[in-house]
Amino acid sequence: MTASDPDPDSAPSSTLAPAVLISEVGPRDGLQSVAATMPTAAKQGWIAALHAAGLREIEVASFVPARLLPQMADAAEVVRHAVALPGLRVMALVPNLRGAQAALAAGAHKLTMPVSASEAHSLANVRKTPMAMVDEVRAIDALRRGLAGSGPMAGLEAGISTAFGCTLQGRVDEDAVIRLAVACAEAGADEVGLSDTVGYANPAQVRRLFTRLRSELGDKAGAAHMHNTRGLGLANCLAAYEAGVRTFDASQGGLGGCPYAPGASGNVVTEDLVFMFEAMGVATGVDLARLLAAREALRAGLPGEPIYGMTPEAGLPKGFAPAAAPAHSRDTSTGEMRNV
Amino acid sequence: MTASDPDPDSAPSSTLAPAVLISEVGPRDGLQSVAATMPTAAKQGWIAALHAAGLREIEVASFVPARLLPQMADAAEVVRHAVALPGLRVMALVPNLRGAQAALAAGAHKLTMPVSASEAHSLANVRKTPMAMVDEVRAIDALRRGLAGSGPMAGLEAGISTAFGCTLQGRVDEDAVIRLAVACAEAGADEVGLSDTVGYANPAQVRRLFTRLRSELGDKAGAAHMHNTRGLGLANCLAAYEAGVRTFDASQGGLGGCPYAPGASGNVVTEDLVFMFEAMGVATGVDLARLLAAREALRAGLPGEPIYGMTPEAGLPKGFAPAAAPAHSRDTSTGEMRNV
Repeated sequence: MTASDPDPDSAPSSTLAPAVLISEVGPRDGLQSVAATMPTAAKQGWIAALHAAGLREIEVASFVPARLLPQMADAAEVVRHAVALPGLRVMALVPNLRGAQAALAAGAHKLTMPVSASEAHSLANVRKTPMAMVDEVRAIDALRRGLAGSGPMAGLEAGISTAFGCTLQGRVDEDAVIRLAVACAEAGADEVGLSDTVGYANPAQVRRLFTRLRSELGDKAGAAHMHNTRGLGLANCLAAYEAGVRTFDASQGGLGGCPYAPGASGNVVTEDLVFMFEAMGVATGVDLARLLAAREALRAGLPGEPIYGMTPEAGLPKGFAPAAAPAHSRDTSTGEMRNV
Repeated sequence: MTASDPDPDSAPSSTLAPAVLISEVGPRDGLQSVAATMPTAAKQGWIAALHAAGLREIEVASFVPARLLPQMADAAEVVRHAVALPGLRVMALVPNLRGAQAALAAGAHKLTMPVSASEAHSLANVRKTPMAMVDEVRAIDALRRGLAGSGPMAGLEAGISTAFGCTLQGRVDEDAVIRLAVACAEAGADEVGLSDTVGYANPAQVRRLFTRLRSELGDKAGAAHMHNTRGLGLANCLAAYEAGVRTFDASQGGLGGCPYAPGASGNVVTEDLVFMFEAMGVATGVDLARLLAAREALRAGLPGEPIYGMTPEAGLPKGFAPAAAPAHSRDTSTGEMRNV
C-alpha cells in the first residue's frame, strides 16, 4: 500500500473503520519526562479527554519505583480509573517483572516492555543488558499466562528502543535490532515495535527496518514510535505506513522524550499525526476537534509546561474534511465536526 | 524510485553527483515576508554563505515595485553580485513582463513566475486572473527568446501557487491545477512546479498531483515548493520525492511565507530537508556544516528575527555521515566534515 492509495475525495461521509491505530503515549512517556508531577485527578481528566476524542489505546503510566520517577507514583490509581473508560485499551510501561505484577494487579490490559538495542542505553535506562531484558520479557509472559485463568490474558508488547541510533553509542547495527526483535517475540511478546528514542531515524532506514521486521515477525511486527527531534517525525511515520505499519505511537502536544538518553526530545505530536493521516484519507477514529480540545486538560494539569503542535497553532485548513466522521460525532445534524 | 532504494551504508566516500537539487528561496521568499529590510551587503554575504555551503540554485530577489515590497528594492544589485558566484544559477521572481525585463537586464539566469491556481489568491497576490498570468508567461518567454541572441537564453519556470488549497477559497480543484500547469508549459515555461503556498497539502495529495504533473509534462514537471505550516513539510517532500520529483524549494531557517495568503507561514527549512535527504543517502551536494554556519549570516542581517530548524537546534546525530562529501570538502585530510 502506498500513500496514494487512499483518496479523501472517495471517502464516504459515514464512519470508516480506523485504518491505523494511534497509540497515545503522553500520559506515560510525556509526563515522566517533565519535572513537574501532574496531580492524579488531572491525569484522569486528561486521559478521559483523550478517550473522548476517540483514542482507543493509551499508555497511561509507568510501573517503576516512585523514588526513580515520582511523576508515576500514582500509576495503579491511574490505571484503575482508565480501565473504566469504555472501549479503551489501557497500556502500562513495565521495566521488569515486579512492575508487571503491579500493573496487572491494577488491571492494565496491555504491558509494554522497553528493550534497548543499544547496550549503553539499556544499562543507563534499566541497568540491564538487552538480553537480560529479553529474559524479563519471558518471565512477564509466564506471569500473565499464569494469571489468565481468572480472565482474559493481558497483552504484552516489546518496544525496541534506540532501534535507529543512540546518543551514547551512535550507530546501532540493524541486524542486531532485528535479532533482538525476534528474540523478544520468541520470549513471548505478542508484538514488537521499533522506537526512534533519540530522533536519529530517516525515512529510508525506517522503511528498511520495518520491512525486515514484518518479514521476520509477520503479524507480530508492532508499532512505530518516532520522535521529531530533527523534524523528521511525520516523514518517518509516512515511511513506516508505506512499509505496512498500522500502529503509531504519538504524544499530545509532543510532550516527552527519554530522560536517560541525552538530547532526546520531541515525541511525534498526536495532533499533527492525526491531521496527516486524516488529510490523506486514512481514518484514525480520532476526532480532531475533540483532540485539540483535550490540550486544555493537558495544560490545566501542567501549568506553564510548553506544549507543541503545528496543526493546533495553524488551525485546520479551510473546508477540511477528515477521512470519516468518528462514531461519536456522526449524529450531529449540523455536520460541523467535519468542517472545524 | 522509493525511499528505500538509496542505502547510506553503500554510499562511497568519494563525491556522489547530487541526486536532488535543493533550490534555496530564502533571500526572496523569506526576506520579502519579514517586516525588516536586510541591508544589501548582508544579503550578498548571506547568499555567498549559502553558495559556499554547496547550494547551486538560489532565488535571490523579486522584481516588484519597491513601493509594494521595499525589502526587494535592491533586487538588481543583489542579482549582479550573485551572478559572479561560480556555478550558481541565480533565480529571480518576476510577477510580470516589466519585472522580467529588469531581472534579465540585471543578468538573472532563470526567472520564476508565480501563477496561482486559486482565482481569489491570484487577484489578491498579483491583481490578475490565472489565465492572465499564463499570457504573461507567454510574453516573458517571447522576451527572453528575443534577448537570447546576445548569449545563453535565460530559464523560465512557472510555479503553480495554492496548488494544494487556498486560505481564501479553501479547496482547489486538482483538474484545474493540472490544466493550468499544462497551459504554462504550452505558453513557454521550461518547467512548471507546484507550490503548497499555505501549508494545506498532505502526502497522498502531493503524490497524486505530482504523478499527474509528471505524466502530463514529462521533463517539464518542476519543483515541489512545500510549507511546514501544519508540520507536514518534510513528509510532503518525501512523498514528492517518491513520485519522482528531484527539485525542492526550501528556505534557510524556515524564513518566509506569503504576505497575501492569510495564515501562510513556514517554508520548509533547508537545513532539515538537507538533513533528511543526506541521512537517507540521497546526495544534495550541500555541506551540512557549512549550511548551519550560513545561519549566522542570516542572523547578522536580520537581528532579532526568529529563525527555525529542528536539526540546527538538535545538532547532527552522533557518527552521522552524509550521503557523500561535497566536492569542496573532499580534500580535508581529517575527514571531519563527514562527522560533524
